[in-house]
Amino acid sequence: MNRKHALELRRGDAVQTQMHFARKGVVTPEMEHVARAEQVPVEAIRDELARGKLVIPANIHHVELEPMGIGMSLRCKINANIGNSQVTGDASTELEKLRVSIECGADTVMDLSTGGDIDGIRKAIIEASPVPLGTVPIYQAMERHESVATMTADDILQLIEHQAKQGVDYMTLHAGLLREHLPLAKRRLTGIVSRGGAIMAQWMLEHGAQNPIYERWDDILDICARHDVTVSAGDGLRPGSLHDASDSAQFAELKVLGELARRARDKEVQIMIEGPGHVPFDQIEMNVRRQIEECDGAPFYVLGPLVTDIGAGHDHITSAIGGTMAAFAGAAMLCYVTPKEHLGLPDLDDVRAGIVAHKIAAHAADIARKRPGARDRDDAMSRARYGFDWEKQFELALDPQTARSMHAQTAGKECTLESDYCSMCGPRFCAMKVNKALRAV
Amino acid sequence: MNRKHALELRRGDAVQTQMHFARKGVVTPEMEHVARAEQVPVEAIRDELARGKLVIPANIHHVELEPMGIGMSLRCKINANIGNSQVTGDASTELEKLRVSIECGADTVMDLSTGGDIDGIRKAIIEASPVPLGTVPIYQAMERHESVATMTADDILQLIEHQAKQGVDYMTLHAGLLREHLPLAKRRLTGIVSRGGAIMAQWMLEHGAQNPIYERWDDILDICARHDVTVSAGDGLRPGSLHDASDSAQFAELKVLGELARRARDKEVQIMIEGPGHVPFDQIEMNVRRQIEECDGAPFYVLGPLVTDIGAGHDHITSAIGGTMAAFAGAAMLCYVTPKEHLGLPDLDDVRAGIVAHKIAAHAADIARKRPGARDRDDAMSRARYGFDWEKQFELALDPQTARSMHAQTAGKECTLESDYCSMCGPRFCAMKVNKALRAV
Repeated sequence: MNRKHALELRRGDAVQTQMHFARKGVVTPEMEHVARAEQVPVEAIRDELARGKLVIPANIHHVELEPMGIGMSLRCKINANIGNSQVTGDASTELEKLRVSIECGADTVMDLSTGGDIDGIRKAIIEASPVPLGTVPIYQAMERHESVATMTADDILQLIEHQAKQGVDYMTLHAGLLREHLPLAKRRLTGIVSRGGAIMAQWMLEHGAQNPIYERWDDILDICARHDVTVSAGDGLRPGSLHDASDSAQFAELKVLGELARRARDKEVQIMIEGPGHVPFDQIEMNVRRQIEECDGAPFYVLGPLVTDIGAGHDHITSAIGGTMAAFAGAAMLCYVTPKEHLGLPDLDDVRAGIVAHKIAAHAADIARKRPGARDRDDAMSRARYGFDWEKQFELALDPQTARSMHAQTAGKECTLESDYCSMCGPRFCAMKVNKALRAV
Repeated sequence: MNRKHALELRRGDAVQTQMHFARKGVVTPEMEHVARAEQVPVEAIRDELARGKLVIPANIHHVELEPMGIGMSLRCKINANIGNSQVTGDASTELEKLRVSIECGADTVMDLSTGGDIDGIRKAIIEASPVPLGTVPIYQAMERHESVATMTADDILQLIEHQAKQGVDYMTLHAGLLREHLPLAKRRLTGIVSRGGAIMAQWMLEHGAQNPIYERWDDILDICARHDVTVSAGDGLRPGSLHDASDSAQFAELKVLGELARRARDKEVQIMIEGPGHVPFDQIEMNVRRQIEECDGAPFYVLGPLVTDIGAGHDHITSAIGGTMAAFAGAAMLCYVTPKEHLGLPDLDDVRAGIVAHKIAAHAADIARKRPGARDRDDAMSRARYGFDWEKQFELALDPQTARSMHAQTAGKECTLESDYCSMCGPRFCAMKVNKALRAV
């Protein structure tokens, strides 16, 4: 869609958020776009936006955006993290990761760059991205300062405003981790594993003061309201191991996130809430229910959760398992985890593997929650499978490229695309084939 | 353990099953071995064996076996399928798959060979395998006959006895799919997808008679009793698509499987029950509960279940997601699915990927069910992670080789095994490192 015209029409309002217009009863072109994509009546989108149960991250400066919605009543979304670290990665690498992420089906992308030309990389990504872009502004603040000691609250706010003006659609802000929570984290096996959380903790200790993002929450919300930046309330105390899951530190922060969500709504700022992390499979549903309760149904955006700590090299799988359960229980968006999690910076293949695994998780949950039309593609695939239509099967697969190349690996001469069997069973043992004979009887 | 001596001591009994001895109150060395491995009192093992809630697949001719137990009260197990098809694979390939399967942690292995020197491959695998070996005897029967028309019930029984004498520890027997079920399968989107099920269906139609394995069930149980072959009651009507899941065909067969389980127990033959297949995530728990109810708690051995039909190329992940839920709900063993499922015969890399994905699933369920000691390795891993002990992390990972090589990929000069950071975050942004600084304050 072309947002330019829509944005000009509502230029007069001091508050530019989709929530603001929803509360005024206005249906924006962004809402219409989301309603069409989700096969949901636009009034339902508007009502859920007004009540804070759904967000449309759409910064007014990100003109080329194709708006999308995040909320429990919509298809479960997935986010891919890109961005360099201080050790590896530059702008061209990150743009290539963006391209691959969108091609593989990422619904949003977060640029987590922490080194090099952070500003230039972000600018290039926003211009190239039709999907909402998220950032963690504190990373750039850290990059500008030798240590947290020289960083002021004003520095942080300036960067939030700077990124808001650049067109960032949503920002992770670690405002829920308070000074009084720090002793709770000391009892943990893996302490604070959130980078943003660790930086805020260090800041509070160095300055002997309360979390500056929490302290300046109203000022930050005013910036977000002007540019329609959706807040993604970070969980700085998310557990980094099964041992630390669902502990008093995590839930103390969640209570504050609920308070921050209410204050955001009071200023008509869109907000979603981030969640763990590492969580045993049996605790995931409880975690989602608790978030819904504490935050009045604000969309829940979870990282994983990872259901074991020993999956290194395959953590896209441990995460997809936990993510399916979380999304089934009501999480609105899954942050992908790649096979390189805990080991290194993901390359293009890792990005692909991470996205596909989480597309599977989100899709499985959409089916399990019986979202409209969720199973249509599965039924079409099964029909193609039953009909030995290999081309159609590749086309309908979540990852057509891999499906095609794997089939080709063992197909060869004896078993081609025209064969009504594959190398798994061979010509005489194919159950599907025998079955066809059965039908004819 | 050395089974030779133990087997000689009890040579006198006509019925040689672990269940028989358990019912007599005897504690066999096999039971002791399992009790030690599972950290469970041996009396509990014996009692569950006697009640049919646990099996120890241990053919008396498989002398070099290291016995293991399968049951809801024990660690969840995983099976890896190997075996050639008529199109690809020979003995040396399959022995290499066996080696890799065991190295990666498969608890049992099924040889599903359907072509070439089936007998020779099986003999070689039994001799080389310390884990229980399973087969599907009807595959060999099919290989011997041009069509089902010339195959008799006696032919099938002869092969079951032949394989029992060779030392096969458990056999999938498709006895539950009856003539009267066939009309139910005709309503399906993907009909019958189980190879064994399709063969039995074809047999019944060709001969105009009832399922011969069902008809001769008592004779078959007598063979199993003599050699202690554990029955794995096959689900010939398992759904091959989400559309067909939990339908009347599937549950009609399940009812018969319950009857077959009771008859097996009457003859003191060990039995477990196979389960689906393709099942939406929200139906998995119901499926497990229903199996437990219908089959009086006989161990449930599930294939997947796959939670979407469109994961081709990544079906080890769709299966691991469903498998975690199934095992959490009470399934005792997961049959692995490889990335090549629906596309071709798995190679060594696929076998590896399939096993690791299902080890993750089984382990996540063990943690969620709070099995004794299940989280110890996770806690040790988290401690190693917190302490930047990379070597220890690789060692504790479910797949050390992949973890090590992935770390090495991005580590390089700036970030070595001695570094207290990795390339994911770089030296200044590592939350773990910041956290350590926090503790010192």
